[in-house]
Amino acid sequence: MKTIVFDLLNVDNGELEAIKAAKEFLKENKDYYLYLVGNQELIKKELKGFENQIEIINSDKIAHKVLSVRDALKEESSMLTAFEILNEKADAILSSGDSGSFITLSTLKVKRLPGISRPAFMPIMPSSQENNFLLLDAGANIDIKANYLVEWASVAKEYFEILFNKKRPKVAILNIGTEDYKGKEEHKEANEILKANNQDFDYLGFVEPKNPLNGEVDILLADGYAGNIFLKTMESSFLGVAKRLKKMLLRNFKTKIAALILKKDLKAFKKRYDYRYVGGAYIIGLNKVVVKAHGSSDALAFYSALNQIKIALDHDLINKLNKEE
Amino acid sequence: MKTIVFDLLNVDNGELEAIKAAKEFLKENKDYYLYLVGNQELIKKELKGFENQIEIINSDKIAHKVLSVRDALKEESSMLTAFEILNEKADAILSSGDSGSFITLSTLKVKRLPGISRPAFMPIMPSSQENNFLLLDAGANIDIKANYLVEWASVAKEYFEILFNKKRPKVAILNIGTEDYKGKEEHKEANEILKANNQDFDYLGFVEPKNPLNGEVDILLADGYAGNIFLKTMESSFLGVAKRLKKMLLRNFKTKIAALILKKDLKAFKKRYDYRYVGGAYIIGLNKVVVKAHGSSDALAFYSALNQIKIALDHDLINKLNKEE
Repeated sequence: MKTIVFDLLNVDNGELEAIKAAKEFLKENKDYYLYLVGNQELIKKELKGFENQIEIINSDKIAHKVLSVRDALKEESSMLTAFEILNEKADAILSSGDSGSFITLSTLKVKRLPGISRPAFMPIMPSSQENNFLLLDAGANIDIKANYLVEWASVAKEYFEILFNKKRPKVAILNIGTEDYKGKEEHKEANEILKANNQDFDYLGFVEPKNPLNGEVDILLADGYAGNIFLKTMESSFLGVAKRLKKMLLRNFKTKIAALILKKDLKAFKKRYDYRYVGGAYIIGLNKVVVKAHGSSDALAFYSALNQIKIALDHDLINKLNKEE
Repeated sequence: MKTIVFDLLNVDNGELEAIKAAKEFLKENKDYYLYLVGNQELIKKELKGFENQIEIINSDKIAHKVLSVRDALKEESSMLTAFEILNEKADAILSSGDSGSFITLSTLKVKRLPGISRPAFMPIMPSSQENNFLLLDAGANIDIKANYLVEWASVAKEYFEILFNKKRPKVAILNIGTEDYKGKEEHKEANEILKANNQDFDYLGFVEPKNPLNGEVDILLADGYAGNIFLKTMESSFLGVAKRLKKMLLRNFKTKIAALILKKDLKAFKKRYDYRYVGGAYIIGLNKVVVKAHGSSDALAFYSALNQIKIALDHDLINKLNKEE
């Protein structure tokens, strides 16, 4: 049995969305066992018939935004409980709670992989083409050292290969220009190391935001500061465009006809840029599979995130990474 | 007579686009005099009748990407010539050449305003709403100090007020979260100073990329590294969406009908996110009006950029900023 601890609280759309996803996942995966942290009554009622695949840990304490590391470790919450269970007996964790708390708890409560200095926040990003790319770090480490990027590249490579079933990913460092002399010192240093090393991935050097967005990169390395700005700018740009498009399409009778004709295409278009279809973000560099779902996730998003965990567990990824060092 | 030196070389679409813009601008502004650096024959031919409003400085030396500050100052180019003329006798400069060289020459060749530690690169950005906002720094300073942001805020405020004819702009610092404890030390420090000061603008504190994109911010302060990533991610996201939309609309007979219905709206939509309609980027903090146009500018883009210079000169902006200190 593979085991996942699932923090059901901290869901913008309500706990039920998370429970629905768990139900669907359990139905399809009889070899999985879930530790469910949340409202005992509700879980019991909704998951009747799945008793041999679940253990319920009652909690009604949502993890709030924390102002310090100390708070994250001190304040009782379903998320903290979930991390304690992870440490004790589970293979993986899923939560949609506050990112700051989640990253802090991941860093402090979960053992690191050998040879990895820091964990990184790694979401799956949609390009404007058909492919997706991995971005790391997207916010766990404001300041970095050159070796962090080098270490992350080799871990991300393993994730990429099993997620997308494709060998030799194209790896690059996000920068303000493609020239070797541009950017911050730590990036230049990492660039030199990655260029000199013989790796089992293709290193492209420095890239600008347009390159991953055009689908030219599989793994985009960044410090957590730039990675976070990149991620959020991309997300907000798409949301802004979608809003403007919608307004345009509802402007008058004629545009509404056009909207009707394009309905199916527009849905596919929106889906392409909808984070819910690419799932949660991994925290990598840890000895367990750790996934953070978006706070506004619905049942579908949680279901995707559970499957993201499954793909890592089914491929025995953590053992593989442990052996690599 | 107000004077602008215009570097006509370094244009992706050819020198003629720049010359066309100059012609249109001269026609409408009899109180302006242009120093035109470029191909003498071509300029003479195209600007027949404007002899009393122009001086031609013959040059065929394009400013290439430079690898160092020394190269930028040493290598002969139309851009370097233009900066020399600026220093000697012009009020403003416009060029679409290599950004790196342009920023380097701006920094080294033009006197700074009193009280300003560093110049900043300041483009005008479209939000998803109807307003535009100023972003600075978008790439001139990879590393910054807290006081840079504070100084830039007060200069950008003056530009904003004359550009958009609106008092008390909303100023914010770009960050990875809105909480005061998040982000880099220099940003936290600037945040505290701006919160404590009594300014003639409204300070909003830290914002995330979505806030300016949603039209909530007038002046977005950033270090040149994050500002550049933000700018390029936004631009590439919109271009990516536009490309995908176009593909969708040309997919089959039915979608082409929809495209036909939406033709006018789509044009307006595209125009909204097209840098050419918001013009060039200012380099602020200097004792002259300095504007960098996009490398792929066409006549319309150059014309907008010339008008961006005009608005600053007509409002006597530099004198005002000089007195302020």
